[in-house]
Amino acid sequence: MYIGGIEAGGTKMICAVADESMTVIDQTSIPTTSPAETLAAIFAFFAPYPMRAVGVGSFGPIGIDPHQSTYGHILATPKAGWQHMDVVGALKNQWPDTEIIWTTDVNAAAYGELRLGAAKGKSSCVYMTVGTGIGAGVVRDGELFQGIGHPEIGHTFVKRHPDDTYPGTCPYHHDCLEGLAAGPSLEGRTGIKGQDLREDHPIWDLQAYYIGQALVNITLTLAPEKIILGGGVMNQPHLLAKIQEAFVQQMAGYMETPPVNEYITTWALPNQSGITGCLLLAQEKVAQK
Amino acid sequence: MYIGGIEAGGTKMICAVADESMTVIDQTSIPTTSPAETLAAIFAFFAPYPMRAVGVGSFGPIGIDPHQSTYGHILATPKAGWQHMDVVGALKNQWPDTEIIWTTDVNAAAYGELRLGAAKGKSSCVYMTVGTGIGAGVVRDGELFQGIGHPEIGHTFVKRHPDDTYPGTCPYHHDCLEGLAAGPSLEGRTGIKGQDLREDHPIWDLQAYYIGQALVNITLTLAPEKIILGGGVMNQPHLLAKIQEAFVQQMAGYMETPPVNEYITTWALPNQSGITGCLLLAQEKVAQK
Repeated sequence: MYIGGIEAGGTKMICAVADESMTVIDQTSIPTTSPAETLAAIFAFFAPYPMRAVGVGSFGPIGIDPHQSTYGHILATPKAGWQHMDVVGALKNQWPDTEIIWTTDVNAAAYGELRLGAAKGKSSCVYMTVGTGIGAGVVRDGELFQGIGHPEIGHTFVKRHPDDTYPGTCPYHHDCLEGLAAGPSLEGRTGIKGQDLREDHPIWDLQAYYIGQALVNITLTLAPEKIILGGGVMNQPHLLAKIQEAFVQQMAGYMETPPVNEYITTWALPNQSGITGCLLLAQEKVAQK
Repeated sequence: MYIGGIEAGGTKMICAVADESMTVIDQTSIPTTSPAETLAAIFAFFAPYPMRAVGVGSFGPIGIDPHQSTYGHILATPKAGWQHMDVVGALKNQWPDTEIIWTTDVNAAAYGELRLGAAKGKSSCVYMTVGTGIGAGVVRDGELFQGIGHPEIGHTFVKRHPDDTYPGTCPYHHDCLEGLAAGPSLEGRTGIKGQDLREDHPIWDLQAYYIGQALVNITLTLAPEKIILGGGVMNQPHLLAKIQEAFVQQMAGYMETPPVNEYITTWALPNQSGITGCLLLAQEKVAQK
């Protein structure tokens, strides 16, 4: 018997199969097209492997409260065809004897980093991805953090930089954190794609100002032992130090944290945090039985 | 044997003694002056009552991590004489056989409201006080929420209202939430004390804009089942409806919550949430034995 992981993204579905000791047997990446086509490809990939449990870390927002009828669904996503899609229902229908563990992509990544990555040995962390969007996953007391919903820290409001007049890109809130600081804002502000921006472009200071400020708010609200940054924008190696500096400056000594270069780091499992977390969640569900 | 509660504020110390069924036997309010004088008065009040446990909800910031040497201390408070005061140490010294439960004033109030007040029957809530300062306590899965520190949501940054040029009152951050929206900002902006401001003064819309926005950020980060507002500024009975409206407007439909008039309410135990929470924490410590 095997365990599975599905990191369900709006662009691609990363699928992996492992044995119960977490050795990966097979892995693939499936483009996210229509739900029917995508699910058919996922089922075909997993068909040779009878699985006891599958961990799914999904793009969102998703229904996460087991007491509500929207549990297991993708909710109001802009991704065409996936609005209100009952993902867990479709998986249970195909695999009636397989346990499905359902959380957000960023919660899965936070879990992967806590157990096997940058927060190994800690009992709490926040993982923030800065890419096409901004999202954060939270682990606390070793467990996924979810309430009536899952954290949607990307859409929290932040204090605008006094020199910044950019309207923001968020269709809901315009100038929330994601609207002001996700990947599209870099190109929106400069006309240059994020990955082509020179290291000395002043946009990086503004980017660090917003991410650093969001990490202050996260620290003052969740008080995690560690914060881990990942995602496409974090591939800029000079950005971490700027964010650490912006964090220290804006915290202004108010709350004590571990030294900033230990407290805020980049991911230890680049591009693998999410799928690793999905497999771990499946493995642990099996171990509990 | 008795249980005790101390709601330790920067202005006064509310002390209460109860029997183990939570019936209050004696209660007093002691002005907060120097630590030596204040503690002597506290010890004199409790002297007739041998206590098994005392719950303390303190003004802060406070050291909350039992693994650190600052546990039980008041940290960098502006309150003269109380900086780095080892409160738990002083209480343990006086009462070596009494269990001391130590948390923030707002965590204690959140706990009181969850168990016996506006969030009764829920397993999670956030309690926010809006008064001389702004603070928030968090209960989750029925327990106090604390990490490497306790939540300090009053000092999170918020998006400034486009028409607002007030510099803010926070000595650390200037225009954080507390700097822009605590009681002193009302008088600072208008020249009129908060309690004397007319109900139709436009300042209340600005006040509601900031508090409502902070509740959006709290919802997107902590996803509690309920948010409860208390403190002096909330004595304005017209303010709640404005805050609810500002919350709905700024959330912009992004995350589903319970209906706003159930989700965001004022305290059910006005001015008693904190001391009630302190006594409950003591009672439960005794019950665990």
